[in-house]
Amino acid sequence: MTTIEQTLAAKREQHLKELSDWLSIPSVSALSEHKEDMTRTAQWTADQLTTIGLENVEIMPTKGHPVVYGEYLQHDDKPTVLIYGHYDVQPVDPIELWDTPPFEPDIRDNKIYARGATDDKGQTFMHIKALETLKAVHGELPINVKVMIEGEEEIGSPNLDAFVEQYKEKLKADVLVISDTTMIEKGKPTVCYGLRGLAGLQVDLKGAKGDLHSGLYGGGVQNPLHALASLLSSMHDEKGRVTVEGFYDNVIPLMDEEKAAYDALNYDESALIEELKVPELFGEEGYSFLERTWVRPTLEINGMFGGFQGEGIKTVLPAEASAKISCRLVPGQDPDDIVERLDAHIEKHMPKGVTFTTTPFDKGKPFVTPYDHPAIQRAGEALEEVYGEKTAYTRMGGSLPIAETFSEILDLPIVLMGFGLPSENFHAPNEHFHLENFDQGLRAICNYYEKLSKTGLS
Amino acid sequence: MTTIEQTLAAKREQHLKELSDWLSIPSVSALSEHKEDMTRTAQWTADQLTTIGLENVEIMPTKGHPVVYGEYLQHDDKPTVLIYGHYDVQPVDPIELWDTPPFEPDIRDNKIYARGATDDKGQTFMHIKALETLKAVHGELPINVKVMIEGEEEIGSPNLDAFVEQYKEKLKADVLVISDTTMIEKGKPTVCYGLRGLAGLQVDLKGAKGDLHSGLYGGGVQNPLHALASLLSSMHDEKGRVTVEGFYDNVIPLMDEEKAAYDALNYDESALIEELKVPELFGEEGYSFLERTWVRPTLEINGMFGGFQGEGIKTVLPAEASAKISCRLVPGQDPDDIVERLDAHIEKHMPKGVTFTTTPFDKGKPFVTPYDHPAIQRAGEALEEVYGEKTAYTRMGGSLPIAETFSEILDLPIVLMGFGLPSENFHAPNEHFHLENFDQGLRAICNYYEKLSKTGLS
Repeated sequence: MTTIEQTLAAKREQHLKELSDWLSIPSVSALSEHKEDMTRTAQWTADQLTTIGLENVEIMPTKGHPVVYGEYLQHDDKPTVLIYGHYDVQPVDPIELWDTPPFEPDIRDNKIYARGATDDKGQTFMHIKALETLKAVHGELPINVKVMIEGEEEIGSPNLDAFVEQYKEKLKADVLVISDTTMIEKGKPTVCYGLRGLAGLQVDLKGAKGDLHSGLYGGGVQNPLHALASLLSSMHDEKGRVTVEGFYDNVIPLMDEEKAAYDALNYDESALIEELKVPELFGEEGYSFLERTWVRPTLEINGMFGGFQGEGIKTVLPAEASAKISCRLVPGQDPDDIVERLDAHIEKHMPKGVTFTTTPFDKGKPFVTPYDHPAIQRAGEALEEVYGEKTAYTRMGGSLPIAETFSEILDLPIVLMGFGLPSENFHAPNEHFHLENFDQGLRAICNYYEKLSKTGLS
Repeated sequence: MTTIEQTLAAKREQHLKELSDWLSIPSVSALSEHKEDMTRTAQWTADQLTTIGLENVEIMPTKGHPVVYGEYLQHDDKPTVLIYGHYDVQPVDPIELWDTPPFEPDIRDNKIYARGATDDKGQTFMHIKALETLKAVHGELPINVKVMIEGEEEIGSPNLDAFVEQYKEKLKADVLVISDTTMIEKGKPTVCYGLRGLAGLQVDLKGAKGDLHSGLYGGGVQNPLHALASLLSSMHDEKGRVTVEGFYDNVIPLMDEEKAAYDALNYDESALIEELKVPELFGEEGYSFLERTWVRPTLEINGMFGGFQGEGIKTVLPAEASAKISCRLVPGQDPDDIVERLDAHIEKHMPKGVTFTTTPFDKGKPFVTPYDHPAIQRAGEALEEVYGEKTAYTRMGGSLPIAETFSEILDLPIVLMGFGLPSENFHAPNEHFHLENFDQGLRAICNYYEKLSKTGLS
């Protein structure tokens, strides 16, 4: 019997040829001039799912770009894996910074360069080819799968909530697998099992009816910039802790074994200082950089503005001042509750002499799959066996609204099995994907689905 | 014989037409794209001085925009009045808040709307027309005059010191008269005998080498906006007092009789609250609004900015944050000393994790003239006779570095005879000038110069 490895080796050329074809279609979801390309890409994707032997393959319309769906449901006694990916890509500007054209895939130095190479066509393609390979080797898929590949991830998945809600039954599964994240570092296989949520608001302060001359009114009327600085500085103490009342109340503390796992990663903080060119790292006292960005909630000012911003000085006492504030939330915290607490803090700490309004931004709940869940542990083992390196079990500081959607509506564990590298320029010129991760990732995905077939999810 | 009053009435239309012509030239000294307009304005001004019969009219170059000069020196036994004004104006942003275009003067409700209407083309123009009128009525000017109109007041008069120093002999006079300030309230003639000085700086904070994703780095790297908010909020206590060390050390306390004079003005703070549409006044505890803005030093943030300022949210941890800070200074305070203290405060209170630089702005010393000086008293009487209302002898909160320059180099008394009103939006959109003050002011200026001719300055 031919092995997975032999099959993958024999088909490597063809896989890369097919991936290049897919990458050649400029599926930029954000730009209306690519509407035709989006349709072509969806069709190409559907054809692939049919070719590899999935059933009931459909291009399912949404209010925006369609979702491509296919399934294989031949086993009563095997888990059903929902695989999510996206066929749309980021715009390519500034185009002049690309060394080779973004939609003419180029392989050099064992990397494939193209828009979408790592985010997310390259990674989605690996699941498609893993399924094809498993079928070729075993004569059938060892598990049940449902594959959905959307076309609006890069514009914030505006229609995904409604889609998942509408097809709740159709999408029902035992586990969701997504490869749209990065490995913690080159050569270190990574399973991510948690993401932070998001909540925030804009606060707009108003002083006098218009800008005033700081000579005539300065010192006699509250300056909205002073009030804003005072308000914002009241939100952290000097140890980097958020001082909004009750902010940390519902935070689920990190388990000792998780903390130990993070410590064991030996994350190099001094390399990060060097890379970012900061004088030092700074954050909530008592936590490492990884803890601060993975499992601790934050409050960040994303923008702050008022008064004169041009060159030199204009002695104005401005009428208005504003700040945009967002919080990254961790399991236990509720976005609505946090916005309420922010509002209460602002109400309480707003200096005299100004009026204000607040406007909440879109929210996202934090998400975590228990670290000892079999879907997580089997994924880690599958990676470890292929890479020959201990798997890093991580959380990530960013938010993934799609994870929130699936978790809320379908109520299932989520495995984020990323093969990208942070250095691969996703969302930037010269996006690329390391082919050693393409090769090893394909083997690891096959290994994972074989494992799930054997052990199930209990 | 035709009287001053009759002549002014007959020429009113023409005066307003000429003023509108002058206001139509966008003489924004701060912006290099208006260089041509500055030259045109200087030429227009020089032509006016020639037209009204001044002699030796010149456009005198400086390293920046030129000074326009003209003189009338026919009397051996009369005082020589140096009249100062400026033909440059502030920028017009935010342009969308103007009801009519800033350089298309519009007269409505007996006010003229345009950038420069009150600050300072409108007020400078009154002196030009007063001289023209006096000459028409008397056949000669009753006093000697030197008129100098500069083009860099709104950018801090960077070349005036050198100019006055160079032409010290040429500019020699018995008194300097400036109309570039405001009346204390509508209908209340005002002579100002003191101004605050100015010192300030920009502070620029730098965090990482570029903007960071707030999900991946938020909470683990100092946010320059947090650092800036903390720094700025450290500069005042909650009672409105400046907390920069030694800031008040050299302030000369207000004399009891001056305080009594200010109290006697019965300044209506509640009317000001109503006018400015602020919920309340706010400033250093223990002082009235007039004291806070006339005789107490201040520290104001004039601009503060960093991060995302567009619509909605961008979850960025910005690399940079900046603030523009200026202090109004009172007699006893030295601008250089204050900038040093600001620098020391910033050094001491800058949070960890960022680097920073400071850049000082142009400075101006505070200035005061004894209020019983004849030049001040005659001015008050001249105003009282025209307005039929007791003159307010005041100080003002604004800075006029030029007053300091003239006082230092030429050593002469200075009369600030302002006809603007605080509500006239100078330095803001919809700047305007009340024409009743244009009319009465013209008569008062004529009256003043006739008085000086009769009584001299002893």
